Amino acid sequence: MRSIVINGIFVTVNQDNEIITDGSMIFEDDVITFIGESPEDLSKFDQVIDARGNIVMPGLINTHGHGAMSLLRGYGDDLPLQEWLEKKMWPIEGRFTKEHVKWGTLLAILEMLKTGTTTYSDFYIHMDVVADVIEGVGIRANLSRGIIGIGASSEEKQLKLSEAENFAKNWNNKADGRITTMMSPHALYTCSPNFISKIVESATMIQVPIQIHLSETAFEVEQNLKQYGVTPVKHLQQLGVFEHPTLIAHAVHVTEEEIEIIKNYQVNVSHNPGSNLKLGSGIAPIPKMLDQGIYVSLGTDSAASNNNLDLFEEMRLAALIHKGYGQDPLAIPADIAIKMATIYGAHSLFIGHYTGSLEVGKKADFIIVDVNQPHFHPMYNPITHLVYSAAGKDVVDVFVNGKQLVKKGQVQTIDEERVIYEVKRLANEWA
Amino acid sequence: MRSIVINGIFVTVNQDNEIITDGSMIFEDDVITFIGESPEDLSKFDQVIDARGNIVMPGLINTHGHGAMSLLRGYGDDLPLQEWLEKKMWPIEGRFTKEHVKWGTLLAILEMLKTGTTTYSDFYIHMDVVADVIEGVGIRANLSRGIIGIGASSEEKQLKLSEAENFAKNWNNKADGRITTMMSPHALYTCSPNFISKIVESATMIQVPIQIHLSETAFEVEQNLKQYGVTPVKHLQQLGVFEHPTLIAHAVHVTEEEIEIIKNYQVNVSHNPGSNLKLGSGIAPIPKMLDQGIYVSLGTDSAASNNNLDLFEEMRLAALIHKGYGQDPLAIPADIAIKMATIYGAHSLFIGHYTGSLEVGKKADFIIVDVNQPHFHPMYNPITHLVYSAAGKDVVDVFVNGKQLVKKGQVQTIDEERVIYEVKRLANEWA
Repeated sequence: MRSIVINGIFVTVNQDNEIITDGSMIFEDDVITFIGESPEDLSKFDQVIDARGNIVMPGLINTHGHGAMSLLRGYGDDLPLQEWLEKKMWPIEGRFTKEHVKWGTLLAILEMLKTGTTTYSDFYIHMDVVADVIEGVGIRANLSRGIIGIGASSEEKQLKLSEAENFAKNWNNKADGRITTMMSPHALYTCSPNFISKIVESATMIQVPIQIHLSETAFEVEQNLKQYGVTPVKHLQQLGVFEHPTLIAHAVHVTEEEIEIIKNYQVNVSHNPGSNLKLGSGIAPIPKMLDQGIYVSLGTDSAASNNNLDLFEEMRLAALIHKGYGQDPLAIPADIAIKMATIYGAHSLFIGHYTGSLEVGKKADFIIVDVNQPHFHPMYNPITHLVYSAAGKDVVDVFVNGKQLVKKGQVQTIDEERVIYEVKRLANEWA
Repeated sequence: MRSIVINGIFVTVNQDNEIITDGSMIFEDDVITFIGESPEDLSKFDQVIDARGNIVMPGLINTHGHGAMSLLRGYGDDLPLQEWLEKKMWPIEGRFTKEHVKWGTLLAILEMLKTGTTTYSDFYIHMDVVADVIEGVGIRANLSRGIIGIGASSEEKQLKLSEAENFAKNWNNKADGRITTMMSPHALYTCSPNFISKIVESATMIQVPIQIHLSETAFEVEQNLKQYGVTPVKHLQQLGVFEHPTLIAHAVHVTEEEIEIIKNYQVNVSHNPGSNLKLGSGIAPIPKMLDQGIYVSLGTDSAASNNNLDLFEEMRLAALIHKGYGQDPLAIPADIAIKMATIYGAHSLFIGHYTGSLEVGKKADFIIVDVNQPHFHPMYNPITHLVYSAAGKDVVDVFVNGKQLVKKGQVQTIDEERVIYEVKRLANEWA
């Protein structure tokens, strides 16, 4: 099927952040085949999409989260981190069944699609359920069965490992290639070094990348120093994890030396500003990482610590907080922030060769942002407006793999009323 | 006229942050006369407003801004502060006529009303134009003719002073009491101590409060120390300014001793997190001020340094950045953040006795927030959702002084298309 998008301001987020105004973009089935001047004759196309003067840009890419935890949005806010985890999150999550994961995941995807996210990373349990949901809904996703070793017998650990391994094997490149997988040891404080090595071994065997929470809090770094005499990033290097393609989530408390290591091993970083701020974890040295050429992307983390999944908000936070914290108005300019939310996100998930920007040969993953609103006027520069003025709710249409998933703000492949009904029902169990 | 709001979740933001679910609120003409259980008989009311299970809360109060500068939204982003001011803002503002101020102010009010702001503070020039606009549009406002002394002859200074004085006298408590006024010396680095004293004298004479930009940047504080041997807050104390009701905007770089002074003189503070971050000014010690019982409210500053006027975003920023900066998840909890955006804002503008909360006897300034959306589910606590999950675009209806100004997202008293047309036309002069 040949489709064309006309009357758009095309924010390509290519190498030079090129903007094509009054142009058009053609895609055939799921692949972009042309961006440039509008052709005379539109009759040759099966589908003509009129952007009505709005911004057309790559879909946003959320590189760290736990979808089903949307069921815990606002459950235990404004508490100290340990109390929040031990008294609120973990006891409830212990009760999560496949049903909780199904409806929690659908709630998360509903919110992400409506706010312009076309690819997200989900690191959780009952991942077969999540993969089934994604196959049906049409979003692009990077999935892994998160593994926590602490408190588990060696049999249980073996069970979790093979479950994660089978999942990663069975679902990698499935659902028209929309699903890719990873192996994800939860963290250094929940998995022993030996167990992490085992997990990395199997990741090497089945050839999928690693994702892990790392140096999220000062406490975590202290504990690792106490227990192992080494800081987390150096610890993973010593374990040989970084010989393997790796994405680390958070990296809030890392030294200059550790940033060197992250750079030298081409480790990718998922920056989660909203969650790091809300939990009082701290402010990551992101400008230093970007200066080193590290791919730093954006994640919302779960809705339980954010408390929404609007990646436009994370993009704005990333562009703002480092300016204020460093008292440097030049830190993370808008043209870098928009790359963090799109193409750097694709690279962070190792799929930068086929999504993350509007370029010929890439998948047709794009969104249309309604700029016919007061907060987009006057418009001197579409990119700074997308970063500093826009919000997720400005997104009206969303396409993934060439298929329209959101039309005029309505998700086409999910029954929103049903999802909200089921979510209320499940939450009432413990509300 | 007797009106009743039914089927609401009433977030009152009274002393105890009381929430009344499935209740009703009655207002007669412009005043709230009842909040509580719904009456049996609705036939006695001239107007029945069905909140359809949504949140009803006080309108937000934006305590620092420069409305007409919305014309410069995104004009010169990602520049060093001095270059931004000297090369971008000041040359263009020098060309602002009454026409620019009229359409720029309307653009700002359009955006503020649509995102739930019912009262805002505007500190600018050509204020008679601004007051006329506000009288017609129906929003509540605190207005002052900002005075810059630097570079002006003593005649020009006298002219500005009497212009500000006449404006403050003529417009205070006008437009059904929706307009209050202040006298506003721009800052210590743009007005000599003598000139500031003169301005304060006339404010005392006509009995309106003072508003001034203070300690926004480290550079400003250094300059004041160099030039006068004293930090800005102590300087204003020495000048006797704080004997007079005062609101200071920014207060980013203030010492513990200065926070003591702010507290002892009951000076109010407008915290502008978005602008302070974007300009790289720094992060204000707001938790310390709140601990001292200082009324800290929220301001967007102008759209030129934000780049939007969504006060929900400022509320979320205020609730998040201080947690991350202080690595304290308990800093500025949601129940304080929501007061900063409402009742503390009213107190900051010295109108807390008649707006800022939903309480009997107060003006009917309220908004309805559409919670029938994924990012409001599940709902364990409406207040944390308003602070951590909501965005301005979730606001569907806005009432000021008992009159409906926004209905289903549409501003009733402004021709939005016309405003956007005129704004584009004016911006093209220098785009």
